[in-house]
Amino acid sequence: MVRMNIHIVYAHPHRASFNAALRDEAVGTLEGLGHTVTVSDLYAMNWKAVADFDDFGPTENEHFMAATAEAWEKGTLASDIKAEQERLLAADAVILQFPLWWFTVPAIMKGWMDRVFTHGFGYGSSRTWKRYGDGVLAGKRAMIVVTTGAADAHLSDRGVNGDINDLLFPIQHGVLFYTGMQVLPPTVITGAGWQSDYADTVKQLKERLETLAETEPIAYRRQTDDYDEHKRLKPGLEPEGTTGFALHTA
Amino acid sequence: MVRMNIHIVYAHPHRASFNAALRDEAVGTLEGLGHTVTVSDLYAMNWKAVADFDDFGPTENEHFMAATAEAWEKGTLASDIKAEQERLLAADAVILQFPLWWFTVPAIMKGWMDRVFTHGFGYGSSRTWKRYGDGVLAGKRAMIVVTTGAADAHLSDRGVNGDINDLLFPIQHGVLFYTGMQVLPPTVITGAGWQSDYADTVKQLKERLETLAETEPIAYRRQTDDYDEHKRLKPGLEPEGTTGFALHTA
Repeated sequence: MVRMNIHIVYAHPHRASFNAALRDEAVGTLEGLGHTVTVSDLYAMNWKAVADFDDFGPTENEHFMAATAEAWEKGTLASDIKAEQERLLAADAVILQFPLWWFTVPAIMKGWMDRVFTHGFGYGSSRTWKRYGDGVLAGKRAMIVVTTGAADAHLSDRGVNGDINDLLFPIQHGVLFYTGMQVLPPTVITGAGWQSDYADTVKQLKERLETLAETEPIAYRRQTDDYDEHKRLKPGLEPEGTTGFALHTA
Repeated sequence: MVRMNIHIVYAHPHRASFNAALRDEAVGTLEGLGHTVTVSDLYAMNWKAVADFDDFGPTENEHFMAATAEAWEKGTLASDIKAEQERLLAADAVILQFPLWWFTVPAIMKGWMDRVFTHGFGYGSSRTWKRYGDGVLAGKRAMIVVTTGAADAHLSDRGVNGDINDLLFPIQHGVLFYTGMQVLPPTVITGAGWQSDYADTVKQLKERLETLAETEPIAYRRQTDDYDEHKRLKPGLEPEGTTGFALHTA
């Protein structure tokens, strides 16, 4: 049994929601397995969603990204940002739990990404910046737990909303894998609030949490391995006819 | 010449940024063409990004979506939400302008979507809710203007970040088309801040704005036409071998 530090980032506006119950089940399950769990409950923390110049110490820098970089280098980032960066660095696995709002995270969780993954920590402007399979969070695991009122079929391969795996690509590939994490297939709870059975949902979630250390990550392609000098996928690596996000999974 | 009401929703933290200059060029160009332009500058307005119970009048409703629905029906939504809904209803075209942060909109603009497109306005829970090509904003046009420091190749068909058109799908299809708007191809300004030439960028933007009324929208499939009773794309409508988001464009 691998004992891990697991950081859960959680967002839901209602303290006694279906989501809150699932979060408590998750914490109980993980602690029961011997893991150490930290939770950032963004609504309860009144997390500041909007990235702005107040996130930095005094700066002469008017260019926003440059000011971010400066604050990172000088250690003058806001204390809530620093605390989250430290929790991420201390974690072996990161879980993002949220309700799907307009096919992505609620704004408060987008603001967690915008503010925590600063220049210097999450990304850089050099051509040699390590990303996509490598980076500050390399070696850690990540998993999304998402609830949605939409039915399963609506988010399936031919579903009108688009395939949930493609809808989550900008987060799973563009944020979690970008910063080095190995991304596990998401735990998707559809029909939340009308179609899902609570006991079944908890069972599904527990199974995923119990296998967190062993589950095979999504086989996103590493930038250093599969892309050319223009950061384009090298020819011939994919099955013939592959298009779209599928190109980026081996 | 079609004279239109055009609503620009704009987000950038720096008042004198490259983005701000482009926004001013856009307003000048559109007004010069005889259009009427409104701008919601989300940072300047100190737009509230986080959807929560403060968005509603007094309610006994603890379920967040139900409380949203109630506030819409009773007319007790926060005044900033109502004002944006009215601007959208008054518009013939809507432009969202933002820097690409973690492959989507900054949190403040996600919060604009979360809060303005309430239950009853943007979406509903009935099975017959009109969406994807029909809805409250049917007949209007929409266009994204997005800047990014990434190079063109990195966001191209085989680019390591994913194709920009796929990355924008959750917004273009899942928000703009969902609520009924006809979505024009995005204006994508790559290499912003290092590779892009300002005069060229302005020229590119002006051409898109001058043809706003005539440009052919993205041929997203209407839900009522192309999907079955399970909201899955009817068989045989797509070229053989099509997968991913490409399924949802005719």
